[in-house]
Amino acid sequence: MANVEYVQSMSGKLEDVKVGTSLSFTKTVSESDVYMYAGITGDFSPNHVDAEYMRQGRYGERIAHGALMVGFMSAASARMRVGRTVSLGYDRVRFVAPVKFGDTITTEYTISEIDLAKKRMYSKVTCTNQRGELVASAVNLRAFVD
Amino acid sequence: MANVEYVQSMSGKLEDVKVGTSLSFTKTVSESDVYMYAGITGDFSPNHVDAEYMRQGRYGERIAHGALMVGFMSAASARMRVGRTVSLGYDRVRFVAPVKFGDTITTEYTISEIDLAKKRMYSKVTCTNQRGELVASAVNLRAFVD
Amino acid sequence: MANVEYVQSMSGKLEDVKVGTSLSFTKTVSESDVYMYAGITGDFSPNHVDAEYMRQGRYGERIAHGALMVGFMSAASARMRVGRTVSLGYDRVRFVAPVKFGDTITTEYTISEIDLAKKRMYSKVTCTNQRGELVASAVNLRAFVD
Amino acid sequence: MANVEYVQSMSGKLEDVKVGTSLSFTKTVSESDVYMYAGITGDFSPNHVDAEYMRQGRYGERIAHGALMVGFMSAASARMRVGRTVSLGYDRVRFVAPVKFGDTITTEYTISEIDLAKKRMYSKVTCTNQRGELVASAVNLRAFVD
Amino acid sequence: MANVEYVQSMSGKLEDVKVGTSLSFTKTVSESDVYMYAGITGDFSPNHVDAEYMRQGRYGERIAHGALMVGFMSAASARMRVGRTVSLGYDRVRFVAPVKFGDTITTEYTISEIDLAKKRMYSKVTCTNQRGELVASAVNLRAFVD
Amino acid sequence: MANVEYVQSMSGKLEDVKVGTSLSFTKTVSESDVYMYAGITGDFSPNHVDAEYMRQGRYGERIAHGALMVGFMSAASARMRVGRTVSLGYDRVRFVAPVKFGDTITTEYTISEIDLAKKRMYSKVTCTNQRGELVASAVNLRAFVD
Repeated sequence: MANVEYVQSMSGKLEDVKVGTSLSFTKTVSESDVYMYAGITGDFSPNHVDAEYMRQGRYGERIAHGALMVGFMSAASARMRVGRTVSLGYDRVRFVAPVKFGDTITTEYTISEIDLAKKRMYSKVTCTNQRGELVASAVNLRAFVD
Repeated sequence: MANVEYVQSMSGKLEDVKVGTSLSFTKTVSESDVYMYAGITGDFSPNHVDAEYMRQGRYGERIAHGALMVGFMSAASARMRVGRTVSLGYDRVRFVAPVKFGDTITTEYTISEIDLAKKRMYSKVTCTNQRGELVASAVNLRAFVD
Repeated sequence: MANVEYVQSMSGKLEDVKVGTSLSFTKTVSESDVYMYAGITGDFSPNHVDAEYMRQGRYGERIAHGALMVGFMSAASARMRVGRTVSLGYDRVRFVAPVKFGDTITTEYTISEIDLAKKRMYSKVTCTNQRGELVASAVNLRAFVD
Repeated sequence: MANVEYVQSMSGKLEDVKVGTSLSFTKTVSESDVYMYAGITGDFSPNHVDAEYMRQGRYGERIAHGALMVGFMSAASARMRVGRTVSLGYDRVRFVAPVKFGDTITTEYTISEIDLAKKRMYSKVTCTNQRGELVASAVNLRAFVD
Repeated sequence: MANVEYVQSMSGKLEDVKVGTSLSFTKTVSESDVYMYAGITGDFSPNHVDAEYMRQGRYGERIAHGALMVGFMSAASARMRVGRTVSLGYDRVRFVAPVKFGDTITTEYTISEIDLAKKRMYSKVTCTNQRGELVASAVNLRAFVD
Repeated sequence: MANVEYVQSMSGKLEDVKVGTSLSFTKTVSESDVYMYAGITGDFSPNHVDAEYMRQGRYGERIAHGALMVGFMSAASARMRVGRTVSLGYDRVRFVAPVKFGDTITTEYTISEIDLAKKRMYSKVTCTNQRGELVASAVNLRAFVD
């Protein structure tokens, strides 16, 4: 993570954004994160809130919602301020390993392509745990709305 | 939505799942949903928590996180219980219209393909507001883990 | 409410508790109270989180969970500190009128009977809105556990 | 729990509801559940938020609010959708054993009586922990409001 | 803490308030307290939400926000009801020792000076952990606004 | 606010920090912010959660906790990352105007003094509403702990 700055000051114009610019955001996932996430979204799958059910399965314990990682991806992108942007969506969102309560997730958001004509920006996003294992990845598509 | 059941009883075997089965989940998005979502994910983009900033832009007011719709998509899938499943990810997640505080979002999750050999299931997911406008869509990929 | 004190200092012995002692607790019910309550308990009935569904029914808008009033009843009882007590339960819990977002609910908890031999205490509890209308009532039973 | 379905599809008419129909809802009670419940209801009794106080008492640790179990009871009832219903209240709510942080509570809601003339439905509700011990019980009374 | 009452009944007039009156409030700080506090205030410093970062530092683990102690100070003051008051601010707020998740904090609020002419009241406030160690202190200034 | 950057990249050494560097953080205060803040801190003063009580007073409506502004001050400071720092406290915290639900608060944190010998840093912090009115101010004292 040598070339990653935790917060990143960027000027307000699209022209100043460069491919390769990278932002990151790190958070230890708490039980309350998962429970509040269930409470907001309504996703009370036993994968997340039923410890007994999970004790009998392959993971052995409750795991975080994959979609919470998508939230972290958005949080990393929100650390960049280059004019007004809005997320258009994600491609190839993959949850590749379970995230357990207490895992520390570092989300890295790296600009991979800028289309000045269409005013769009593509970024590669990864979520990695405290052992350096990839837990989720995606491509984010943002538009410059002004 | 004539053929959509709010909750859906399904037996515990993959063999009983049929293409076309559909589940839905409806929730009015509150200011607290968006604020708590920001608080959990760390996404404090002014799009979501700065009413003055938004007053000057094209939307005129704060909007929900696109990624919150991904959470609703997971919640709809969690209403189906057919053995142990886990979400592998999403393809073509698109946020096609802004979701404003007070909008009532119906998320529909419809099984589109079942691959018994690979033990995978593909579903089309849509989020629609109270005026019937599509606000988000995606394809969800789930695996049967047992 | 002339003889009701908002907070009540009581000595630490059961013998000092008197029939007729009354405590109260007032809170305006917010949208976030109802949404967080749904999120903790898992009660996402459309009565509470689907504004469109409710627009078509007799209430015209989302209402608070009746069980939230039971929570307020416990909160009022918790303002009394007379040794260690624990709630044994409630009898005749009645939700007699809908509680709408923004209603200000005053919960009054009045000791109605003390059984020193059995170390039990019965209290009448009422929840009243800002127009003085009763919205909920119950009898609470507490035990002195030490 | 052989004859209990986690989610239950029921048609929209009262006439289709049968005595004996049963729904259930399972959740592991987290520290955040209890703390957020305190925060919403205002019940900051040391029983729930003061570990030192509890260390000296009979339970040895913080316990969940009894009234949280009433919330779980409502959540189980909300999984049944047969027309518009509203909870009229509860009878004989009993908190029979302490619920500790980390306990997994299964709430079962079973229809015990249907009064078509009065448009009312009575159900027996129980909360059981991961060791199969009953922790709470009650009778719920619902009305069909449309 | 012999002369501290947990809750304190005080009459509604400033003239009845006495120097030396003391109130207290005790709460075990949970992981969810710190995480929700981060979520509301937007303070996601790694001191509070990044366990790996903290493992390498002098504290060895995540700690609570110092400003959360200021919140507890206000909570203790809110237990006194003597007419309408409003907090004007704090002087010499000092965070003198780290508060770890699971620490039980007792906040004591003691009136130290009353200025009837200016309708102001000064109080000394301390936060102490379960080992009796001072973790925070301040002077609070309140005004009687009616 | 011409010379204020929303996020600020700073190198990891104390020597690179300059007097005059300024960070800011803007958030519209929601009803849920105030209610969740009450729920975490335990400060249920009617100033914040009782709309009827406030309707009769000078403010006419519920207001945010002053201490929430201290939380925003910490959030602004957390946007600067120059080695490991910890907040030692605040001096002259003043709540100079009420913050109402829906007010948009910009918190500015400006370094005013750096003491390399003592490894301490002093900053002036202000909270301003959407009309440019000062609502709170303080001096923050931070230490470099490594």
